[in-house]
Amino acid sequence: MYSRLPIIQAPMAGAQDARMAIAVCEAGGLGSLPCAMLSLEQARAQIGAIRAATSAPFNVNFFTHVSPQPDPDALARWRDLLSTFYGEFGLDAAEQAPSPQRKPFDEDFCALVEDMRPPVVSFHFGLPSDELLRRVRGVGAKILGSATSVAEALWLERRGVDAIIAQGREAGGHRGMFLTEDVEAQSGLFALLPQVVAAVKVPVIAAGGVANGRGVAAAFALGAVAVQIGTAFLMTPQALISDIHRAALRAARDDATRVTNLFSGRPARGLVNRLIEMLGPLNPAAPAFPQASAALAPLRAAAEARGSGDFSPLWAGEAAGLAREMDAGALTETIWREALACAGGLDAGMRQAEAQAK
Amino acid sequence: MYSRLPIIQAPMAGAQDARMAIAVCEAGGLGSLPCAMLSLEQARAQIGAIRAATSAPFNVNFFTHVSPQPDPDALARWRDLLSTFYGEFGLDAAEQAPSPQRKPFDEDFCALVEDMRPPVVSFHFGLPSDELLRRVRGVGAKILGSATSVAEALWLERRGVDAIIAQGREAGGHRGMFLTEDVEAQSGLFALLPQVVAAVKVPVIAAGGVANGRGVAAAFALGAVAVQIGTAFLMTPQALISDIHRAALRAARDDATRVTNLFSGRPARGLVNRLIEMLGPLNPAAPAFPQASAALAPLRAAAEARGSGDFSPLWAGEAAGLAREMDAGALTETIWREALACAGGLDAGMRQAEAQAK
Repeated sequence: MYSRLPIIQAPMAGAQDARMAIAVCEAGGLGSLPCAMLSLEQARAQIGAIRAATSAPFNVNFFTHVSPQPDPDALARWRDLLSTFYGEFGLDAAEQAPSPQRKPFDEDFCALVEDMRPPVVSFHFGLPSDELLRRVRGVGAKILGSATSVAEALWLERRGVDAIIAQGREAGGHRGMFLTEDVEAQSGLFALLPQVVAAVKVPVIAAGGVANGRGVAAAFALGAVAVQIGTAFLMTPQALISDIHRAALRAARDDATRVTNLFSGRPARGLVNRLIEMLGPLNPAAPAFPQASAALAPLRAAAEARGSGDFSPLWAGEAAGLAREMDAGALTETIWREALACAGGLDAGMRQAEAQAK
Repeated sequence: MYSRLPIIQAPMAGAQDARMAIAVCEAGGLGSLPCAMLSLEQARAQIGAIRAATSAPFNVNFFTHVSPQPDPDALARWRDLLSTFYGEFGLDAAEQAPSPQRKPFDEDFCALVEDMRPPVVSFHFGLPSDELLRRVRGVGAKILGSATSVAEALWLERRGVDAIIAQGREAGGHRGMFLTEDVEAQSGLFALLPQVVAAVKVPVIAAGGVANGRGVAAAFALGAVAVQIGTAFLMTPQALISDIHRAALRAARDDATRVTNLFSGRPARGLVNRLIEMLGPLNPAAPAFPQASAALAPLRAAAEARGSGDFSPLWAGEAAGLAREMDAGALTETIWREALACAGGLDAGMRQAEAQAK
């Protein structure tokens, strides 16, 4: 998929930078740079770093949410709900702490794309305006969009994307969903992928729950032409996550994640922690994306200072338990070798089963 | 898996009888007879019908829930919640209608198993008591149990099952879950299956979202030794579902199902209809399994008489859109042929990708 190997390293805003992308690109996969939490200058520097380090194609990723109107009442209610926890840490109700910013793709980012000309650009939460999309296409970039349903896949195809990422419910981090807010509408990858493949003409990339070569072979069997892998790369040394997050991933079990809106205001899958247990994973009091994170920032900082991830977003997909501690480049190569071996073994095994059945 | 082909037709209580099982067995798959909604006499007659029609192995399935103590208050609150709908159909609040009974595996069913000696026995919602399980093992039957998590798979393995059905979140009908009531703990099959395979030593059967040969090949790639397929068989002429249910399945989209407790009191996946829209898919007022269905029976009958499935359980998995209208035997053979072709094509395709990558 644009790269030598059909493995895309999922863009994971806040958890990685150019270093991970470069390692994956050099191994033959498609490395990705997430820009949603970068300033324009940071994004420019990071893309420059990739260009300087590798001649392989790479992907630059943007969010396309609409920044919400400030809603002081909603933010006050949210702070109020969190006040017990503030008290626990001796934090003042008006406490502030640096909070992750999440910026949508805009005129400035588009000018950057026109300037830096990345070979692939992927969007999350739908697509930007027709005008901005036309300009991205104008630089010759391949355009990828994420779909959590057949309806979203058809919408993306009508807008002219080059390929669709079918994001199954298993995926960690933010759901790409943009035509519905009902998280229950997102199918598991086993059901979603073949139905998206049947519905659209463009190539389909599988995402969600893929962590090793068996997953790659399975996704190909279901009709994907490539996979996008996220959580498995969080255990690489190139991931910029906290030791707390890393330890939580190391202990992750299959039933340990939930889709939650608490950390950003938009549904995303992460490991269950105390905040999720206390407020429930999906709480209507969480302010609109991305505003929920600001009031959590002081709590998160205070808890992390004590070595606790009670108030941190511990993003993880349902297959976190399959992640391995391995260099991102080596992981890319290993997954591909595993996929080849799996496909060969599968064919042989099934022909043997057929012979025995006769 | 005990049968010639590694395809198990999922037992679907209320939706099929011996005829479907016989068609699948004769095609080489493992046909299943669900007994939860049969009387002892009916179960005996149905097993006898399978024995008379085929010499192939077959599976007999039982529920292992604990029948709840009657809770008149809970039942009254449930009727109260439904009273608006009763009024709409001009039904009396005390209206009764024949309602599906769901009986757990007990002394009588066990004696039947000892008498009829089915080659395979599968259990849903855990396992029966050690004593009953020992007796089933005593007749030489292979024993299958359903797991919705690694924890449940390990529990089943410790109790000595011969194989574990890993039921992904995509699956239609009742979740097999028995160690938790939190439906969010169940992973999608892409994540669940390889983690169960890694955790247990017994063979693992994949269920949930598998509807065609591509799904079989994908499940094998992820480590399954067989698949259990349900919803895809609901569109066969052997399925005993209403025309209303059949029409709803024909129109099913990937995002059209929800896990709901409204129809039985226990979470099960079905197509969204008016009852689910009005009460929400998971409503705490639904009485303990299987008592929720009694108060719905008059509504269901009245609505179905008008050609409406507004109050019917329209069980379906997330891959219902892939189901084909085809004889159950022909479907079994078709799926296996597709799986063989898929595995061969996958191996060739991936080796070609590898050659190009070099």
